[in-house]
Amino acid sequence: MMKKNVTLVEVGPRDGFQSVKGDFIPTELKISIIDQLIDAGVRHLEYTSFVSPKAIPQLADASAVTEHVLSIYPDIDLFALVPNLRGASNAYSLGLRKVVNVVSFSASHNKANINRTHEQSLAAYREIRDTYPDMEADLDLATAFGCPFEGKEGKYRDPDSLIEFLEPYCDSGLKTVTLCDTVGLADPEQVRTLIKALRRAYPELGLEVHIHDTRGLGMVITLAAIECGVDAVQSTLGGLGGCPFAPGASGNLSTEDMVWMLNEMGFETGISFQKILAAAKFQMQTIPTGNYSGHHITIEKETPCCF
Amino acid sequence: MMKKNVTLVEVGPRDGFQSVKGDFIPTELKISIIDQLIDAGVRHLEYTSFVSPKAIPQLADASAVTEHVLSIYPDIDLFALVPNLRGASNAYSLGLRKVVNVVSFSASHNKANINRTHEQSLAAYREIRDTYPDMEADLDLATAFGCPFEGKEGKYRDPDSLIEFLEPYCDSGLKTVTLCDTVGLADPEQVRTLIKALRRAYPELGLEVHIHDTRGLGMVITLAAIECGVDAVQSTLGGLGGCPFAPGASGNLSTEDMVWMLNEMGFETGISFQKILAAAKFQMQTIPTGNYSGHHITIEKETPCCF
Repeated sequence: MMKKNVTLVEVGPRDGFQSVKGDFIPTELKISIIDQLIDAGVRHLEYTSFVSPKAIPQLADASAVTEHVLSIYPDIDLFALVPNLRGASNAYSLGLRKVVNVVSFSASHNKANINRTHEQSLAAYREIRDTYPDMEADLDLATAFGCPFEGKEGKYRDPDSLIEFLEPYCDSGLKTVTLCDTVGLADPEQVRTLIKALRRAYPELGLEVHIHDTRGLGMVITLAAIECGVDAVQSTLGGLGGCPFAPGASGNLSTEDMVWMLNEMGFETGISFQKILAAAKFQMQTIPTGNYSGHHITIEKETPCCF
Repeated sequence: MMKKNVTLVEVGPRDGFQSVKGDFIPTELKISIIDQLIDAGVRHLEYTSFVSPKAIPQLADASAVTEHVLSIYPDIDLFALVPNLRGASNAYSLGLRKVVNVVSFSASHNKANINRTHEQSLAAYREIRDTYPDMEADLDLATAFGCPFEGKEGKYRDPDSLIEFLEPYCDSGLKTVTLCDTVGLADPEQVRTLIKALRRAYPELGLEVHIHDTRGLGMVITLAAIECGVDAVQSTLGGLGGCPFAPGASGNLSTEDMVWMLNEMGFETGISFQKILAAAKFQMQTIPTGNYSGHHITIEKETPCCF
C-alpha cells in the first residue's frame, strides 16, 4: 500500500506553554521539549509568541527561544505568533521570517479576545505585510466554526461568508490560513463543506486546521479535514492547552494520539510514535500543572480487559 | 438536505453499571436512568447481564430490572448479555427474547476473560441457539481489532481470518455481530477494511461496532464505521465503563457526545441531545464513583476563550 502524505504542525510550545498557570517554565525546559519534538520527527513548529509579557507571562522568553531555535534548526519550518506590528518587528529583528497573525471570524469574539474590530484586525495584518514584505505572515482564523457568543448557525455554516471574509487577506498576499475551532463547536460535516468550498474559491491558498477536543471530536474532525485535502493539521504535545476558560473541558488535540492514529492508518507522518510519546510524558512530568487532553499519556500500561 | 439514518444502541446499563466499584447501584436508580434514556429517544438498549452475582455484583438485580423493562417498554428493542445457557435460561424464563453472547477473537483473551477455548465458546453459543430457537442470540466479538496479549497485527488486519471465524456462527443462525474494540486498538482504516469485507462476505448479517475511546479514537472510528454502512453503533451514557484494568484510561464512547456530533451532522438519531445530556449529568451525580469518558458532562459552562 502506498503511504499517504500528511503534514503535522506542532503548536504546543506556543499554544500549550502559554496556558500553563503558576511557575514560569524555565527557558531551558522549553528548549529541551522543542529539541525532543524535533528529534521525534517534527518539522513544522510554532514555537512561541511575541506578545506582551503582561498578557502572557509564560512566553516572556520569546527572544531567547528564538535565538536558540534559529541557530540550531535552520532546516525546520519555524514560526511564531504575533498579535501586531510590534511583535512582528521583534521577530523580524531576530531573523525570523515567518509569523502568524490572529483574527476571529466572530466579530464579538474578536472584540473580546483582542479588543479590535474586524477592520482594525485587517489593518494590523496589512501593516505587517507592508512593513515586512519578505516575511511570510500567515493567519489563524479563530472561531472559524463557531463562537461562544454567537453559536454556530448562520455564517458559521455558510461557505460564502468565510470566502468573503478571507478575500481582503488573500488580496494582501496571505499564503496560508489556519481554520481554528476555538471552542470545539465544529462537526465533521461542517468542516468538510467549508474546506471544500474554500479550496475551490482559493486554489492557491494554503489550508490548515487547528481543532480542539472540547466535545471529544478533535480526532474525527481532524481526520475529516485531512481526507478533504487540507495541507496540514495542527496539534499540541500531550494535548497541552486549549481553552483555559472552560474548566474541566479538554482542549487541544494531542500530537501523540494523532500520530498513533495516522501511523496506524498508513500515513507518512515522519514522526516516531515512541519518541513523541516519550516527549509527552517528559512534558507532563516536568510541567505537572498543565491541562492535558492526551489519551496515551494516561494509559499506565497495557493490561487485559474483561468484556 | 435529506437526513441520514443511523441506529444507536445504548449499552450503559450493562457495560457501564457493571464497572462501578463500591456501593451497589439501587435497582430504582438503574430503572430511573433507563427511563431517562428511553425518554430521551433511545430505542435499542442492552439493559443488564444474566451473569453470576459473584462475578459482577452490580448486576445481581437482572431479574427485577428485566421485569420492569419488559412490562413498561414492550416496543423498545431490549436485550441482555448472557455468558452461557444458564444465563439464557434465566432471561428466557422472564420473557426476554433477545440476548447477546460473547467470544473474543483473540484465543488468549478468550481464555483469560471467560476461561474458554474458541471451540468451547462456539459450543456454548450453539447450545443457546439449539435450546431456544425462538430467542435471538447475537454475538459480541471482543478484541475484534486487537488484543492486549496479541497486539493488532496478523489476523486483526486480515478480513479472511475474521470471515472464517464467524462462519460457524453464521451457520448456526447468527443474526447480528458486534465488533468490539475491547482495548481501543482499532484505527479507522482497519475498521473500514474489515467492515467492507465482512459486508461483502455476509450481506445478510447485521453489523454493529462497539468502540472504546482508550486512545481518543472512539468518535473517529465510530463515524468511519457509520459511513461504511454498519447497521448500528454502540455507546454508553456518560461514557461510563469500558476497561476497568487500565487505570486512568478513558473507556467507552459516550452516547451524548456521539448524539451531539451526529445531530450536528444532519443524521436522524431520534435522540434529544438536551435530554440525553441531562440524563448523563444525573447519572454522574447519582453514581459519582463511576469512570466517565464523556466530554460534554465535563464542560461546566460555555465561556469566552482566548486564542
